[in-house]
Amino acid sequence: MNITETINTPKELWNLVRKDEYLKSTAGVAPGYLQTNLVTLPKEYAFDFLLFCQRNPKPCPVLEVLEPGKFEPEILAKGADIRTDIAFYRIYENGKLKSETKNIIDYWNDNLVSFLIGCSFTFETAMLNADISLRHIEQDTTVPMYITNIKTEPAGKFSGPTVVSMRPINKENLVRTVQVTSRFPGTHGAPIHIGDPSEIGIKNINLPDFGEKSKIKEDEIPVFWACGVTPQAVALQSKPPIMITHSPGYMFVTSTRDESIAVI
Amino acid sequence: MNITETINTPKELWNLVRKDEYLKSTAGVAPGYLQTNLVTLPKEYAFDFLLFCQRNPKPCPVLEVLEPGKFEPEILAKGADIRTDIAFYRIYENGKLKSETKNIIDYWNDNLVSFLIGCSFTFETAMLNADISLRHIEQDTTVPMYITNIKTEPAGKFSGPTVVSMRPINKENLVRTVQVTSRFPGTHGAPIHIGDPSEIGIKNINLPDFGEKSKIKEDEIPVFWACGVTPQAVALQSKPPIMITHSPGYMFVTSTRDESIAVI
Repeated sequence: MNITETINTPKELWNLVRKDEYLKSTAGVAPGYLQTNLVTLPKEYAFDFLLFCQRNPKPCPVLEVLEPGKFEPEILAKGADIRTDIAFYRIYENGKLKSETKNIIDYWNDNLVSFLIGCSFTFETAMLNADISLRHIEQDTTVPMYITNIKTEPAGKFSGPTVVSMRPINKENLVRTVQVTSRFPGTHGAPIHIGDPSEIGIKNINLPDFGEKSKIKEDEIPVFWACGVTPQAVALQSKPPIMITHSPGYMFVTSTRDESIAVI
Repeated sequence: MNITETINTPKELWNLVRKDEYLKSTAGVAPGYLQTNLVTLPKEYAFDFLLFCQRNPKPCPVLEVLEPGKFEPEILAKGADIRTDIAFYRIYENGKLKSETKNIIDYWNDNLVSFLIGCSFTFETAMLNADISLRHIEQDTTVPMYITNIKTEPAGKFSGPTVVSMRPINKENLVRTVQVTSRFPGTHGAPIHIGDPSEIGIKNINLPDFGEKSKIKEDEIPVFWACGVTPQAVALQSKPPIMITHSPGYMFVTSTRDESIAVI
């Protein structure tokens, strides 16, 4: 029995994760519910980071901000606890990865502000529902990600390049791909580039900076979306004394439906 | 000659306003360009206010934030100066209106953070382009606004009721009204209520809290939009030592096209 298939509600997942009884990727878990990235920073960094996200909504679509010390996402996930309800966390100190943990109780303090940021799983579900296949899912690999020459709008301490993810799309599905992903600006939304990777500073499409290579077939075009790795990379550059994130693939699952944040 | 009709570009307007040579409402000026509300607050209030706006994007759609002391909107209006390029400003001290001025040079300091917030003129233009008439424009009155029982999501110091504007819409145009305004979430977007005013706590539709009454004809339904007066009212409740806004109707005109912020 595949445990993933049996988890249909966010509450079931929180209860398992809280007891360290679910330690796998959240891909496909609690289908139809929003999953989010987590970025937790000291409150001294919070205004600049929120402003950075406001200025760069495509890579950094903020869905909820938890005020200093708060750990229950009252808007998106009442009853959850972001300190325990993600399977794996990464702890960074002064911009360097220090450890990976199953909860962040020992690191928690009342000075920490947490940002829940939209995740590509939402628009990928919309694509799959429209019968647009996704190579990295077919291949069972991590989506390829690239550092581009597209600059973000800086804010205070924060600046840096946009990181994108790439999905090869059959030419016939290009228009539909733009349409269905445009409905979800809260989870990166429409693509930011279609076609020639070199135009956005990607030298070799087969050598992603993060994730794994996706094979591009003859009748396919590479399509690029702004990626949630951007805010993490930019935040790390500012070397905060502490920063906590989810571990890649182990997202925070909310009890809010994907459709509730669609723009139309 | 009507001077309004001769002002087609934001730059022309800035130059006139800067010299106090244009002192009228900006309705209909530089058609097709985004106009915005201005809210300027001390930086101690900036994170809570930005977070309030993030949590309440319908009444408070932030289009640009100018960091402490900055007065040129580099994203929406390069070359403009928000201290001089609005015809009339309101200065509030400790939550009370202190004066109305033609520029804010004497009040300016490096501690002030400015928020440019989307304005209903944008979605009204979209409605007019779709041949949906607007009663307050026909009547040449100010749109009626009401304090509702719809609570905003509080953030830090900031909380309070949602203020809405009302436009009577012919039944035949209801669907088209929702469609065309939905394209502009950055300027209040889709309506938040259609029909019975009492359901959102409005006792007498003929006695608006701000603006003037709009006649509702027999084949028309009152339609309500979240209104930019909300963030101003909420900010004033927190009684900041200083707060500066545009005067109602005298908006900041950007050099960015309405269409550039449409979601589809």
